[in-house]
Amino acid sequence: MNLPAIYHRTSDNYCYPIDENQLIINLKTGYDVMSVELIYNDPFDGGILGGKWRWQGKRLAMPFKKELEQHIWWTTTITPEFKRCKYYFHLKFHDGQEICYLEEGFLSPAHIDDQATMKQMFTFPWLNASDIVRTPDWVHETVWYQIFPDRFANGANQHLAHIKPWHSGEVTNQEIYGGDLQGIIDKLDYLVNLGITGLYLNPIFHAQSTHKYDTTDYYTVDPMFGDNAKLKELVQKAHQKGLKVMLDGVFNHTGSEFFAWQDILKHGFDSPYIDWYMVNKFPFLEKGHRTRHGDYYSFAFVDNMPKINTNHPAVVQYFMEVVSYWVREFDIDALRLDVANEMAHSFNKELYRTLKAIKPDFYILGEIWHDSINWLQSNEFDSVMNYPLTSAISNFWLDHHRNKYQLSQQINRCYTMYMQQTNNTLFNLLDSHDTQRLFNRVHKNIDAFYQQIFLLFAMPGSPCIYYGTEIALEGEHDPDCRRCMPWQAIDNQEHQATLATIQAIIQLRHHNSCMKSQHFHFENHFYQVPRLIELLKIDDEGNKLRILFNASEHEIYIEVYETTFCHKYYNHQLSPGGILAYNVL
Amino acid sequence: MNLPAIYHRTSDNYCYPIDENQLIINLKTGYDVMSVELIYNDPFDGGILGGKWRWQGKRLAMPFKKELEQHIWWTTTITPEFKRCKYYFHLKFHDGQEICYLEEGFLSPAHIDDQATMKQMFTFPWLNASDIVRTPDWVHETVWYQIFPDRFANGANQHLAHIKPWHSGEVTNQEIYGGDLQGIIDKLDYLVNLGITGLYLNPIFHAQSTHKYDTTDYYTVDPMFGDNAKLKELVQKAHQKGLKVMLDGVFNHTGSEFFAWQDILKHGFDSPYIDWYMVNKFPFLEKGHRTRHGDYYSFAFVDNMPKINTNHPAVVQYFMEVVSYWVREFDIDALRLDVANEMAHSFNKELYRTLKAIKPDFYILGEIWHDSINWLQSNEFDSVMNYPLTSAISNFWLDHHRNKYQLSQQINRCYTMYMQQTNNTLFNLLDSHDTQRLFNRVHKNIDAFYQQIFLLFAMPGSPCIYYGTEIALEGEHDPDCRRCMPWQAIDNQEHQATLATIQAIIQLRHHNSCMKSQHFHFENHFYQVPRLIELLKIDDEGNKLRILFNASEHEIYIEVYETTFCHKYYNHQLSPGGILAYNVL
Repeated sequence: MNLPAIYHRTSDNYCYPIDENQLIINLKTGYDVMSVELIYNDPFDGGILGGKWRWQGKRLAMPFKKELEQHIWWTTTITPEFKRCKYYFHLKFHDGQEICYLEEGFLSPAHIDDQATMKQMFTFPWLNASDIVRTPDWVHETVWYQIFPDRFANGANQHLAHIKPWHSGEVTNQEIYGGDLQGIIDKLDYLVNLGITGLYLNPIFHAQSTHKYDTTDYYTVDPMFGDNAKLKELVQKAHQKGLKVMLDGVFNHTGSEFFAWQDILKHGFDSPYIDWYMVNKFPFLEKGHRTRHGDYYSFAFVDNMPKINTNHPAVVQYFMEVVSYWVREFDIDALRLDVANEMAHSFNKELYRTLKAIKPDFYILGEIWHDSINWLQSNEFDSVMNYPLTSAISNFWLDHHRNKYQLSQQINRCYTMYMQQTNNTLFNLLDSHDTQRLFNRVHKNIDAFYQQIFLLFAMPGSPCIYYGTEIALEGEHDPDCRRCMPWQAIDNQEHQATLATIQAIIQLRHHNSCMKSQHFHFENHFYQVPRLIELLKIDDEGNKLRILFNASEHEIYIEVYETTFCHKYYNHQLSPGGILAYNVL
Repeated sequence: MNLPAIYHRTSDNYCYPIDENQLIINLKTGYDVMSVELIYNDPFDGGILGGKWRWQGKRLAMPFKKELEQHIWWTTTITPEFKRCKYYFHLKFHDGQEICYLEEGFLSPAHIDDQATMKQMFTFPWLNASDIVRTPDWVHETVWYQIFPDRFANGANQHLAHIKPWHSGEVTNQEIYGGDLQGIIDKLDYLVNLGITGLYLNPIFHAQSTHKYDTTDYYTVDPMFGDNAKLKELVQKAHQKGLKVMLDGVFNHTGSEFFAWQDILKHGFDSPYIDWYMVNKFPFLEKGHRTRHGDYYSFAFVDNMPKINTNHPAVVQYFMEVVSYWVREFDIDALRLDVANEMAHSFNKELYRTLKAIKPDFYILGEIWHDSINWLQSNEFDSVMNYPLTSAISNFWLDHHRNKYQLSQQINRCYTMYMQQTNNTLFNLLDSHDTQRLFNRVHKNIDAFYQQIFLLFAMPGSPCIYYGTEIALEGEHDPDCRRCMPWQAIDNQEHQATLATIQAIIQLRHHNSCMKSQHFHFENHFYQVPRLIELLKIDDEGNKLRILFNASEHEIYIEVYETTFCHKYYNHQLSPGGILAYNVL
């Protein structure tokens, strides 16, 4: 019995309410476990705690499981009659041995009922309404489109002298190409036609740089992008066309031109804003060396992005007013929080209270690249950018030694890390302004490119297309991943094949209930082909869609007569790089 | 390599700040691991996330470890230069194999630096001041004394007709003996002499029952116990004598005479207080069957303790006013929250904000019997009643088949479950009004009784003596654990030996820096005696106190010339049931 492999805790994603009546209980064990029973009952079934009575549980088999890299993930949902639950697990191993697993450790089944000693069982004490993780329903229905405004479309800046001419080659962060809000408005129909239902805009408020992550003024749209009225117009028109709008909130740091930082530069420790930042010593070294030297804290080591002290009450108040203004004035639907993991949890929770009070189905997305369980408990963020899924998917195509079991284990990891409510709102992406572009990551292999996008769109959560990825736009790591959108080539129908394929995937996501469903399993009918991914999607009615991705180097014979989607599938042969989706009857 | 046994997560007690500069990192592995190195560095050491650069870490051996039932617990403290930390672990096994453990899973050391795939490391993003768990300093210095008021001392109720005469035999919950606040005031010097520095009073506000857990009026001291002025006097006099005062806050449920419940009984669903409780249907069945039948929710299944809806804003506001009144009016120092695990986290957090705003070093203690990590994150409770330690200690003496390794593993579990800051404020107890009395649990074996109390007092946290336990008062499970304090026998010096021993233990706790220290290890010099517990306590200066508990059936020869404390130790022989504490030079 591999007892050290067994893990459960009455917290986080291991035991949580999905609503006011139902409790999800998950258990991790090694692969030597054959079956698990949950033994549960009301904690007060026979009296109050500490008394001289014997607690006994009802038995429930835990049948459902997912495979992880080292573990089996067992899961069940129960409805405790009186909203409370005390429980332990009874495990049977392949070698015939049995053990009971309680909070204090392990006991043999023969000793579980003896009264000689005190026993510590697991307890979920009460399903409290206000502690349940609740996420906005619309997010799972949304297909996002991320726009880096300077590079997407130039609507009103056509004749400005200081902008660089639009081109399709490499770019840097120093250039300005003149993309603006009017450009986005002009392209709304293009996006609607593609199937997009949510816009995510990189920062648009007044800032020094091209990327605008160094805010000067949180209340004014950057003059290069338009003005506040133009933003209002954009949101209104987007709403009319059925698109939600998400802005980028940069509250972890400001630009060096922000009034509070300017005041500190002038008055040093005497500035009334000194506690808005985290300054250690004056005078500052020359630029480029200050934060490495410890003069003050900044984002990464970028001296002109001094880090805001989100622990400070005045800072909290200032930004609550900023976000309230954004929602009330512009009617935005969602906020992506930049460097969200570095902000104080206390700040985030106040943000949650503020935003949900104004708009109850507002969506709060944190930029966190790592395990985010600490931010996804009730009343902080609704979701995070699902970079773990990005790696799980992309690494399979990057490393040809990986087999489909490793891929499925990594994907299963991503969907057992958090609560089920969160899984439905995860922000799923394969590339962004912060990464190499997907087309470059796959070394310009268009089949691998399609396969990854299709797989992403079949996953629970809310998928996002980074502008240009619908036409396989090229780009290396930042800054090159921020090239100009080649509208002329698009208008000349040069990207028609790619665009049509991505559009078909997006439409499938919208209209196929299996594709959109949160229920999935990895299958293994073709165990002799380790790089043929077999994904089964099941909708709430039990309909099944089987999706095959041939990432092997061989043709695979598969006899299907009606397909829901296919790429490189002819005469019952799924070619290398092919995708095949069909209903399972 | 037992990879499934390895566990870490950047959350809870596995990775947390101990102050604004230091981060504690813990790792759990199987016993096949020989050594662990932490590889860590600033996440932005070479650029921003997602960019094309290679993150590299510094290496740090993780030397300190504790033994758990199935795992080794490795721990280290680091000071990230810029308050951020990215890391993974490099493990070496006894068989010579090596593996790297990152957030996404395992990689061989040969592949950790390859650039072909994306890697998900562990990340602790920023040490935010407002998210750090901070607990009041004074709690660790405190020795508590729990008083069940009706049974402790009768000060002003001497001649009331309807009370039962004070006696030393069995009791029920139906009887009233007339103990009161004046009685406690009268005995303050007795408690000071014993070494007590904190009073914990079971409920004292107006209620129907003897135990007063069914509150009628949160603003009025129960007439049997005195009045509000008497409570003020008690707190003042306690403070003058250096004692803190903790009250019992019963906010999970009220008594059936509470005005809001009475209003519901009268007006049903039309009552303005209907959402203060959780009523499902009218009319109610006859008493005794209502909550089992699902008419409404109550504490356990006790019909006359209807459960308060702590999710409801008006309820939150009401109780915030109650606790503010208690602190402002009576100047109490601490609150023990009854059935704290069933109240909404959102309620608890508001309680924390309210109480700490009035008195920053106020102590909030939750009655939770199980793993309480969910309540001990920042800004909820400072501590919980440490019943897991109660079991760990008592079970060793209850079950003579257990050896000292099992005891130490169970105790180590209790001190690796939470944050270090919390360990120092855990409310350590061996018996209470909710359990069998310790003297009965040990089957009236006074040696085992002393050994457990001494061990409890050597543990980090804040130990508590349940009234009467200083004289080994007898009592079975509730209601018999609430007998009258036998003052006449005490005054007649009939309990002098027990009293003197307990007093000596308490004084040692106060005056010996090793005894009080949070640092401890279980040793194993006497590996041939599986029930000789060997505890080493180390203070901040490195002084060492070795404490031996002979729970075996044999005399043990131990050559010590100067002892700090001993019981049943003569001529270098530690008898069965003996305790020996001495400085290690």
